[in-house]
Amino acid sequence: MKQQTQELTSCIQQSFDLQGLMEHWDAKLISVKEGEVVIALPYSEKITQQQGGFHGGAMGAIADIAVGCAGLSVAPERIEVTTVEYKINFLAAFQSGQLQAKGEVVKRGKRLIITKAIVTHIAENGKVSDCALLQQTLIPVDKTYE
Amino acid sequence: MKQQTQELTSCIQQSFDLQGLMEHWDAKLISVKEGEVVIALPYSEKITQQQGGFHGGAMGAIADIAVGCAGLSVAPERIEVTTVEYKINFLAAFQSGQLQAKGEVVKRGKRLIITKAIVTHIAENGKVSDCALLQQTLIPVDKTYE
Amino acid sequence: MKQQTQELTSCIQQSFDLQGLMEHWDAKLISVKEGEVVIALPYSEKITQQQGGFHGGAMGAIADIAVGCAGLSVAPERIEVTTVEYKINFLAAFQSGQLQAKGEVVKRGKRLIITKAIVTHIAENGKVSDCALLQQTLIPVDKTYE
Amino acid sequence: MKQQTQELTSCIQQSFDLQGLMEHWDAKLISVKEGEVVIALPYSEKITQQQGGFHGGAMGAIADIAVGCAGLSVAPERIEVTTVEYKINFLAAFQSGQLQAKGEVVKRGKRLIITKAIVTHIAENGKVSDCALLQQTLIPVDKTYE
Repeated sequence: MKQQTQELTSCIQQSFDLQGLMEHWDAKLISVKEGEVVIALPYSEKITQQQGGFHGGAMGAIADIAVGCAGLSVAPERIEVTTVEYKINFLAAFQSGQLQAKGEVVKRGKRLIITKAIVTHIAENGKVSDCALLQQTLIPVDKTYE
Repeated sequence: MKQQTQELTSCIQQSFDLQGLMEHWDAKLISVKEGEVVIALPYSEKITQQQGGFHGGAMGAIADIAVGCAGLSVAPERIEVTTVEYKINFLAAFQSGQLQAKGEVVKRGKRLIITKAIVTHIAENGKVSDCALLQQTLIPVDKTYE
Repeated sequence: MKQQTQELTSCIQQSFDLQGLMEHWDAKLISVKEGEVVIALPYSEKITQQQGGFHGGAMGAIADIAVGCAGLSVAPERIEVTTVEYKINFLAAFQSGQLQAKGEVVKRGKRLIITKAIVTHIAENGKVSDCALLQQTLIPVDKTYE
Repeated sequence: MKQQTQELTSCIQQSFDLQGLMEHWDAKLISVKEGEVVIALPYSEKITQQQGGFHGGAMGAIADIAVGCAGLSVAPERIEVTTVEYKINFLAAFQSGQLQAKGEVVKRGKRLIITKAIVTHIAENGKVSDCALLQQTLIPVDKTYE
């Protein structure tokens, strides 16, 4: 297990920075603990649906990435994780501010890692609202990058 | 029900064009029938995960949009649809070419529309492979744009 | 909303008692609060899979019922709830003792109720272990029984 | 792969017969092909919900078993399968007749098997209606029975 907090953060940041999707959307890694990672996605035209709100597909993507990073944070050295499947329920829609997805590891198995995430909306005035709930399955794979 | 094919296509295209997420990824609406819509997403740096492949979150998003459009294609006049939830299983990963998501309506209820999608990869040499499988729930809502 | 605790419990107990599946399995309603219900399922030959453990289908069923009861506990008078869909992840398998499913309401909307459940195993020696995690969608319907 | 049809059927029948859940519900194995299995569940008081219809949890259970058997039918010798997770959408409710769940393998991987099922209702007059749709993930495990 990656025990040093700084080493852990740098491992997750490296994986995050390799994701073109996250860069394109100006998403940021907000916090990293062992088994818990928070990601932020600012509102922009790059992530809207037809009514001008955050797209459900974008919420699903950041929630999937938050739990993927959480899973990676508990994986052994030189092991990467990949998503087997996820399921997301939407709770509310918003058209400005930012989303934060908090991913958590529920079970860290050798063959499978089970995770969950909550996506919250943070309005420009600071108001926090629940937006989406995700449940996900990860599988460990060999790391293919340094 | 929107009975004329041309009118149907133009209604779905309008909803699709309003989605900033689709525009910024250079996604295209490929075909529209009543209850079945196909969307294409070309490979680019905007949709990659840390290993350079199509991001699962991006696959989830285009599958969600394909079924959303399929649901919209069977909705009454002046009714829009919004995603209640979706679940996606990943079957394979690819690093080039394009993805196509075919969304289909399974049940068109008054209160809920149930859909499914298959995402396939089309390689530059034309080879077609299954990539992901989605199951989704939509709810009809009043249309908020013209 | 059903505000009196005793009235609430009796409403949920009535719905529970009408479920032949619960009676057949000797399942019990353990606790009822507004938005949170716990159900217990004892180990028996009626719920085993091929390796002699609690069947995943049985875990899914009691989790679905726990969240259904939780949803019902926040529904208006003369309104029943019905399951739109659920998704369950399995965390561990057990061959004796009992399961307890705790269902909780995540969002009480007018048109949809979103819930989650955790299923835990309680061994004969009292040891508690997480077994399964569920996420579910309910829809309000008119009550068809007194 | 289990190539002889008779040997395949007998392997699946053996696993099915070991499931107390199936025996107590009077469920039957209807047909077995490599990668596709059909199971029938007759209506009885053992599987009802509060409105007297087939319980969603029972539909989920037989769908899970149908896909589990389908997964087992493509697994190597001495390998059993266990459910990682499943997700089910309900399409209609019925109060008599029987349900049939057809499980199919979508992807047979070495580390994971992805499946889907459709549950249909067969009325006493022979009318067939779609009831539920399931998507599921299996993982191969060592067989613990002969």
